[in-house]
Amino acid sequence: MNNFEYKNPVKIIFGKGTIPSVKKEIPENAKILMTFGGGSIKKNGVYKQIKEALNGFDFFEFGGIEPNPHYETCMKAIELAKKENITFLLSVGGGSVLDATKFIAAGALYDGDPWDFLSQRYIVNVEKALPIGAVLTLPATGSEMNGNSVITKAATQEKMAFGSPEVMPQFSVLDPECVFSLPDRQVANGVVDAFVHVLEQYLTYPVNSPIQDRFAESILTTLIEEGPKVLADRNDYNAAANFMWSATMALNGLIATGVPQDWATHMIGHELTAFHGIDHGRTLAIVLPGMMNVKRENKKDKILQYGERIWGVSSGNDDEKINKAIEKTIGFFESLGVPTTLPEYDVPEKTIGKITTRFQERKSKLGEKADIDYEQVGEILKDRL
Amino acid sequence: MNNFEYKNPVKIIFGKGTIPSVKKEIPENAKILMTFGGGSIKKNGVYKQIKEALNGFDFFEFGGIEPNPHYETCMKAIELAKKENITFLLSVGGGSVLDATKFIAAGALYDGDPWDFLSQRYIVNVEKALPIGAVLTLPATGSEMNGNSVITKAATQEKMAFGSPEVMPQFSVLDPECVFSLPDRQVANGVVDAFVHVLEQYLTYPVNSPIQDRFAESILTTLIEEGPKVLADRNDYNAAANFMWSATMALNGLIATGVPQDWATHMIGHELTAFHGIDHGRTLAIVLPGMMNVKRENKKDKILQYGERIWGVSSGNDDEKINKAIEKTIGFFESLGVPTTLPEYDVPEKTIGKITTRFQERKSKLGEKADIDYEQVGEILKDRL
Repeated sequence: MNNFEYKNPVKIIFGKGTIPSVKKEIPENAKILMTFGGGSIKKNGVYKQIKEALNGFDFFEFGGIEPNPHYETCMKAIELAKKENITFLLSVGGGSVLDATKFIAAGALYDGDPWDFLSQRYIVNVEKALPIGAVLTLPATGSEMNGNSVITKAATQEKMAFGSPEVMPQFSVLDPECVFSLPDRQVANGVVDAFVHVLEQYLTYPVNSPIQDRFAESILTTLIEEGPKVLADRNDYNAAANFMWSATMALNGLIATGVPQDWATHMIGHELTAFHGIDHGRTLAIVLPGMMNVKRENKKDKILQYGERIWGVSSGNDDEKINKAIEKTIGFFESLGVPTTLPEYDVPEKTIGKITTRFQERKSKLGEKADIDYEQVGEILKDRL
Repeated sequence: MNNFEYKNPVKIIFGKGTIPSVKKEIPENAKILMTFGGGSIKKNGVYKQIKEALNGFDFFEFGGIEPNPHYETCMKAIELAKKENITFLLSVGGGSVLDATKFIAAGALYDGDPWDFLSQRYIVNVEKALPIGAVLTLPATGSEMNGNSVITKAATQEKMAFGSPEVMPQFSVLDPECVFSLPDRQVANGVVDAFVHVLEQYLTYPVNSPIQDRFAESILTTLIEEGPKVLADRNDYNAAANFMWSATMALNGLIATGVPQDWATHMIGHELTAFHGIDHGRTLAIVLPGMMNVKRENKKDKILQYGERIWGVSSGNDDEKINKAIEKTIGFFESLGVPTTLPEYDVPEKTIGKITTRFQERKSKLGEKADIDYEQVGEILKDRL
C-alpha cells in the first residue's frame, strides 16, 4: 500500500424523508442561492419540499443549469451571487448541478476569471469558496461527497476538471426516493458512471491493498446486482438506496487511499462529450473497453482479478481471460441499454483525429503510469469503431 | 437500509515515515500536552521522532497511562492541562492512550466531574473539548478515527464508555512501522478487537445493506489473511499496513451506516476486564462465541451469511452451519494464541453472578433488539465455562 492522506468531512444525511433536514443544516442568517437544473425538481416534489423547509430564509434561485454544466451559465450565477451577497449555496439536483455549484462557490470569492482553476489546475488553486449544501436527486457522479467538479466551456468545446477541499459540500442530503422519478436513461448512465469511477481507481497495478480492492469489488458487485433492479422497478426503495450509496462510495476518496489511479477513460470520455454532447456515463461505456484492451499488459494483474472476482472468469490463458472480462463488462453496459461503440452514437472516425490532436497539444500523458500518449488515445478510440 | 447520518472529519495520514508530519498539523502557537503510556515509545523510536518534529513548540508530557486507562490517571492529566493552560493534546500510543486523551480533552473544559460523561451518558454530553491529534502505535481499537472512549474507574471497578464528535481527533498519524516492535500478544489482541468490532456491526439482522455487508466482510477477510502474517513476520510492512488500515476501517462508523448494531459482546467483555483485568481483545474472544450461540435465532440470517462468505460454510442444516461458524471463529482466535473460555483465564464461576448483578442493577438490556437481559448475560457467560 502506498502512503496517503485522507480527509472527508462531508456530512451525509441519508434516507427517505430527509430532504426537510436542510433547514437545520443551514445557518439561520444565511442568504441562500438555490441552484438547480432543467426543472425536474418542480415535477418530482423536491422543489416544494425545499421551499417549505426553507420558509423564512433569505432565498434566491438560479435554475437552468444544463448537463455537463457550462462555464457561461455558471458565470451568470456568480454574477448574481456577488450582486446579492449570497452566503450559502444550496445545490438541488444531480452531479452537474453540484459541479456547477462548486464552480460558482469558488468563483464568487475569486477576483480573476475562475476558468483559471481548470485551465491552470495545480497552479491556480481555490483558496476560499462559499459554503455549499447539496440535495442529491440523481446517483451517479459522487460529487456529493468530494471536492471535484467538471465544467464545460461551450465557446471552445472544452470540458475540464478542478478539485479542492474548499468546495466539498458541508452536507449532502441523499433521499433515495428521488430515484423513483428518474428516466431509464439517467439511471443507466448513473450506474455506468459509478461503475467506471470504481474501475479508474482499481484497474491499475497491484500494490498489496486488499481492503481497498475488496471495497472496490463490493461496490462493483452491488452495482451489478442493484442497477438492473432499479431499472426494472423504479419504486424499489432498497434497490434505489443501495444504488445511491454505491455511487457515493465509488468516488469519495476512500477506495483511492494508498493505490494508483488511472482516470484516462474519463479524460478521453470528456472529449467525446465536448465534441458530440454524448452523456458522460455513455462516453465511459465507450472508452473503457478500449482502454482495457489496449492497456491489457499494464493492467493485466488487476483485469484478471476483476474478471475472476466480479465475473467468475477462471478458465483460459491470460489473454483469453482478459478478453472475457472485457466482454462481460460490455455485456453489462449493454444490458442497461447503454451502447459501447462510437458508430452507435454516430461519432465519425475523423473525431478521433480531433481528439488526439488535443492531447498532442496538451502534451500531457494519461493513465496510472502516465504512459498513454496521444497516439495511444487514438488506438483506444479506434478499438471502439 | 435504515436512514442514517454520517460525518467523519478525521484527517488520516498513513504510511511509513509519516510521524514527523505532526509538525505541520499542530497550530504553531499551541501549548501541547503529549500523552503516552508505559514507555514503549521511548524504546521504539517514536518518542524521539516526535520530540525532534516538535522542537520549538511549547511542550508538556504526561506518561504512564495504563491499558484500560483509569479515570484516576486521567484526572491527574486534566489537572495538569488546566494548570498549564494546555491548548492541544497529542496522543502517542494505542487505543488506551487515545481513549484517555479524549477523556482528558473533554474533562479539561468541563467544570463538573467528567465521569458524568460516562455515568450519565446521553444526559450529560460533551459540549467542548481540547483539540486532539494522535500518533497511533498499535492497531486495534479504531479510536484514531472515531469519537469513542472507554475509561475504567479503578476505585469501583467500573469500565464505561462515552462518545462525542467533539473528541474525534483532528488528525491521526498511522505509521505501520510501529507494528514492527509490538509483542505477539498485542498484535493478536488487536486483530481480535478489530474483528469483533466488525461483527458487532454485522451479526445482527438483515436490512438489505449489501455495501455495508460486503465492506464488513472485506475487513474480516483481510484480518483473517493479514493477522497471521503480522504474527509470523513482524517486519512485513504490507501485512502491518493492511492490518492497521483494517482496524481503522472496522470502527470509523462507515460499516455502521444504515444498519443495526449490537455491542453486547463489548459491554459484557468490559465487565471481565473490570473484575479480572483481562485484556480487552481477549474478553471479546471469550464472549463472542457465547453470544453467537445463545443469540443464534436472533442472528440466524447474518451468522449464516458470515459462515458462508467468510468461512465457506455451506453444508448442513442451519443449526449445524451456525455451530460450524462458531467453531471457525473460535479456531481463528485460538490460532492467534488467544484462548476463548473463562477457565483459561482463571475466571471463577462466581464472577458470572457478579456480572449479572451489575446488569440487573443497571436495568439496561443489551443487543441490537435490546432483548438481552441480565439472565441471558449469565447464559452467554456460562456457555464459555
